[in-house]
Amino acid sequence: MSDAPIGIFDSGVGGLTVARAIMDMMPKEAIHYVGDTAHGPYGPLPISDVRTHALHIMDALVEDGVKLLVIACNTASAAVLRDARERFSRERGVPVVEVIVPAVRRAAATTKSGRVGVIGTVATITSGAYEDALAAAPAVTVTSQACPRFVTFVEQGVTSGPDLITAAREYLEPLREADVDTLILGCTHYPMLQGAISYVMGEGVTLVDSATETAIDVYRALVANGLERTATEPPEHRFMVTGPSAAFETLAQRFLGPVVQAVEPLR
Amino acid sequence: MSDAPIGIFDSGVGGLTVARAIMDMMPKEAIHYVGDTAHGPYGPLPISDVRTHALHIMDALVEDGVKLLVIACNTASAAVLRDARERFSRERGVPVVEVIVPAVRRAAATTKSGRVGVIGTVATITSGAYEDALAAAPAVTVTSQACPRFVTFVEQGVTSGPDLITAAREYLEPLREADVDTLILGCTHYPMLQGAISYVMGEGVTLVDSATETAIDVYRALVANGLERTATEPPEHRFMVTGPSAAFETLAQRFLGPVVQAVEPLR
Repeated sequence: MSDAPIGIFDSGVGGLTVARAIMDMMPKEAIHYVGDTAHGPYGPLPISDVRTHALHIMDALVEDGVKLLVIACNTASAAVLRDARERFSRERGVPVVEVIVPAVRRAAATTKSGRVGVIGTVATITSGAYEDALAAAPAVTVTSQACPRFVTFVEQGVTSGPDLITAAREYLEPLREADVDTLILGCTHYPMLQGAISYVMGEGVTLVDSATETAIDVYRALVANGLERTATEPPEHRFMVTGPSAAFETLAQRFLGPVVQAVEPLR
Repeated sequence: MSDAPIGIFDSGVGGLTVARAIMDMMPKEAIHYVGDTAHGPYGPLPISDVRTHALHIMDALVEDGVKLLVIACNTASAAVLRDARERFSRERGVPVVEVIVPAVRRAAATTKSGRVGVIGTVATITSGAYEDALAAAPAVTVTSQACPRFVTFVEQGVTSGPDLITAAREYLEPLREADVDTLILGCTHYPMLQGAISYVMGEGVTLVDSATETAIDVYRALVANGLERTATEPPEHRFMVTGPSAAFETLAQRFLGPVVQAVEPLR
């Protein structure tokens, strides 16, 4: 069982930032990644539809024999975490890790003022999932802001320039006014905008990247459950989509990382 | 000038974690990366030798026309930062960014208890560079620990299992005893060990990844100096070595990121 793959699921390409953090920290693990390109992005969908799509894909991954499930999507995490824990962890013994709790834990640990900001898609912010998760932290006040255009900028490869900086200043103004000292990047696309977001928020604000925090949680879950892969041959990763693959393929390289084409001598 | 490449320099392959963070946040920028495989690793070398090698490579990068220099190596940062600022920033107008100051700034911002840990190679820890940089932060006490075997584990792809966990428990024991709440990963290889390090240190300890923090500083320096690339064609990256390239090529994929080979439909 410990040689089985890790199943990672997202509405599209964004969850590849989580996949990559997992590959970095656990290079021997095999990844089976599913992007639900037939239904994503989930932002505009009713929560019951998100739940249906998400559980369907996680069923397929569990049938496929994954040893651990990662919900690498903020909207889906908010929609199905409790259902997924019951359906897979308790009934099937497959641990489930998602992206909200790890980021919230880190933000609660790092804030000094207790003023924490959260940015994400309209759907994630409207769900109130981060506020709910942060409710248990003592003396933390949360300021949330949806940044709908950020995903478009990232997918177009625009991470600087006047258009982005103007949009960022506008979106982040309420967080600057609230004087947050910690800002949760509540969307898997946003790590690509850390430069711009930090530039606008200022050096004193700590950004919490949920991809890194989630990978650390996956590591912990593997070790705690004795599920680390022991096979010596290199892992085989699989990337699957439920619908169109063209945009996924185009963006996958940017999200998963560039590759060294050639190494040359200096001079 | 703004269409010129960013020059990144390391003693070997580790600085690719910094290169990748820069590519993520600034996908339009071209990177010229040099790994000093003829002389690295720098750890065992006298500081004057490190300075000679580092300045020689940075001279070559500046002659080559880079618009900004990144010292993506902790040992070299400790050895030449002041020289490099004088020689390149002041005399040639080429800004220099290194890996120590950005990580120290983040650690000072996130620690609540004022107890900060630093781990790195023997050379980095012996140099006292992090203690020096943290000296300006009020009410911070630093506990440092060299973790010489960590680089070997990463380069062998070992990021979990009893050998690593045993070594990590041993290395990190003084930091646990000191009850640090923030731990600086003072070596460009260590981001790959975040899972293991967090597992041993516990959820309450925040890890500071200098690759991410350095990339944010590069972003800031580009925008502040009006040096963002405006060309529309995709950037061309170059990866250069001063000596052997075999180990560099083998490790480069792991450090710079895997690539999606194919995307298939689900079922």
